[in-house]
Amino acid sequence: MNNKKLLIVGTMAFDEIITPNIASGKILGGAATYIGMAAAYSKAEVAIVSVVGNDFPDKYMACLRDRNIDLSGVEQQSEGVTFYWKGKYHKNMNKRDTLETQLNVLANFNPKVPHHFKDAQTVILGNLDPNVQQQVLDQLAPNPNRIVLLDTMNFWMDIQLNKLLAVIKQVDIITINDEEAIQLSGKNNLVQAAAAIHAMGPAYVIIKKGEHGALLFHKEGPFYAPALPLEEVIDPTGAGDSFAGGLSGYLATQTNSTVTEIKEGILLGTAAASICVSGLGTKALQDTNTEGFYRQLKKLEQLRSVK
Amino acid sequence: MNNKKLLIVGTMAFDEIITPNIASGKILGGAATYIGMAAAYSKAEVAIVSVVGNDFPDKYMACLRDRNIDLSGVEQQSEGVTFYWKGKYHKNMNKRDTLETQLNVLANFNPKVPHHFKDAQTVILGNLDPNVQQQVLDQLAPNPNRIVLLDTMNFWMDIQLNKLLAVIKQVDIITINDEEAIQLSGKNNLVQAAAAIHAMGPAYVIIKKGEHGALLFHKEGPFYAPALPLEEVIDPTGAGDSFAGGLSGYLATQTNSTVTEIKEGILLGTAAASICVSGLGTKALQDTNTEGFYRQLKKLEQLRSVK
Repeated sequence: MNNKKLLIVGTMAFDEIITPNIASGKILGGAATYIGMAAAYSKAEVAIVSVVGNDFPDKYMACLRDRNIDLSGVEQQSEGVTFYWKGKYHKNMNKRDTLETQLNVLANFNPKVPHHFKDAQTVILGNLDPNVQQQVLDQLAPNPNRIVLLDTMNFWMDIQLNKLLAVIKQVDIITINDEEAIQLSGKNNLVQAAAAIHAMGPAYVIIKKGEHGALLFHKEGPFYAPALPLEEVIDPTGAGDSFAGGLSGYLATQTNSTVTEIKEGILLGTAAASICVSGLGTKALQDTNTEGFYRQLKKLEQLRSVK
Repeated sequence: MNNKKLLIVGTMAFDEIITPNIASGKILGGAATYIGMAAAYSKAEVAIVSVVGNDFPDKYMACLRDRNIDLSGVEQQSEGVTFYWKGKYHKNMNKRDTLETQLNVLANFNPKVPHHFKDAQTVILGNLDPNVQQQVLDQLAPNPNRIVLLDTMNFWMDIQLNKLLAVIKQVDIITINDEEAIQLSGKNNLVQAAAAIHAMGPAYVIIKKGEHGALLFHKEGPFYAPALPLEEVIDPTGAGDSFAGGLSGYLATQTNSTVTEIKEGILLGTAAASICVSGLGTKALQDTNTEGFYRQLKKLEQLRSVK
């Protein structure tokens, strides 16, 4: 059974972002938001499972609904306020410090997968508590063609490692950045780290290296997708989520997810990430239409092409 | 007039290398040595212009001569000893400290280009004093098809910037690492840095990013060549020189040096660099035959290939 459904679980948030040049104030953020917006460039049917508070503006919901994203799995709690994250980037923007995290409604979040997305062919577990990721997996109906992707970060390795490992065991594709791959594996070399993570379960290990691109490790050998060189990075927030969104949105539209589709998906994810970082928060993703997205993909092909 | 001659000017040296796992003792090193060995994988006619002292062993000369490298431009001074460099790598091997540099015979080196290489179609000015690089350029016979490559480093920017800029103005291709591109250009972004360096003269600006590959910037847009992911790096010494050697050796064998040949050459340079770092000093280059070199190039093609 093939369908084009992409189920996303992840945070929806207020972000407050400080770069060397900009202080954003409270803006729309969250892993599921970025993943959804990036996945919306595909022809997948996209749904988000998340939670927001009573302070979450309708216009933010509309931003996602306008992209045909199904929000029936987004719980709006009448009591409690939305997850809030504040971060500050260093001068070179490859490093950032978290200044504040308020879990708020996320603290007691029990995800509910909408009935009509329980058979989703493609599922992406965005970066959040692995217990919530597991609850989503537990609600799915069987689908032998299903591909499950996982994105995570060091925070969950620090405080929920065993639960995270249990989730990792059940996924097909993991996306993780280079430092986190080293932390998770205990290896000091990416080839060795990928092999160790592969042994934890995922057939495909994708290591995100920011401006240096992404490396896919799988049994047939590695694949490398470069990042587009950009004259200016406005705000790196959400780049990894956008990458995962572009990738998972593409996979949801494919009949098969062999290594070739996964490589193609990585290129689409790279294009989405390059759009994301060229604006503050979700602005560039909001301002770039499908045509603009494919222009970015074309630039990436030229970057890779010898002829 | 086309010929397959590659003229290399650069250091020949004793290196002493300390990695987290190895202390090499005094071994064969120097930019021209690495460039020559890497270029020898091509079918170019290779010659080195350099200087060594009375302590330079015949077996080291034989290492190069065995690869059909013309050493008639290598002056062996009967008084004085060979250039010596001692460096220590940090734990992650992307950083190193120079512990000692003894210029010795390099201090008063007047390069002499062998008569039969004055018409070389391809010339590479390896990393050394820009005054010496200029002296080599001054001795060349005209060749309208000539391609001149330059490799340099921060040391010469610090102490000979004006002379270096004068040489840069005369070359077609510059290879430089990311930090040095930022230093040379005064820009904090590689796209902007490449544009600034392009304006200094070279039509092609190649920025070496070590384990993250290499970026070519030219008027038709950027090209990216990834580095091969390696399970273990034994010794990064000479990787940049080997890259320049693989590239320049390939260009010397081509009738034209359009952007396509330069991109192809970058891939060959990448293959040579990946061999270089898999052994201590020049050992892996010495131990790897042409067949092994093309196996490495094949791996690189697979790394880049979607299908």
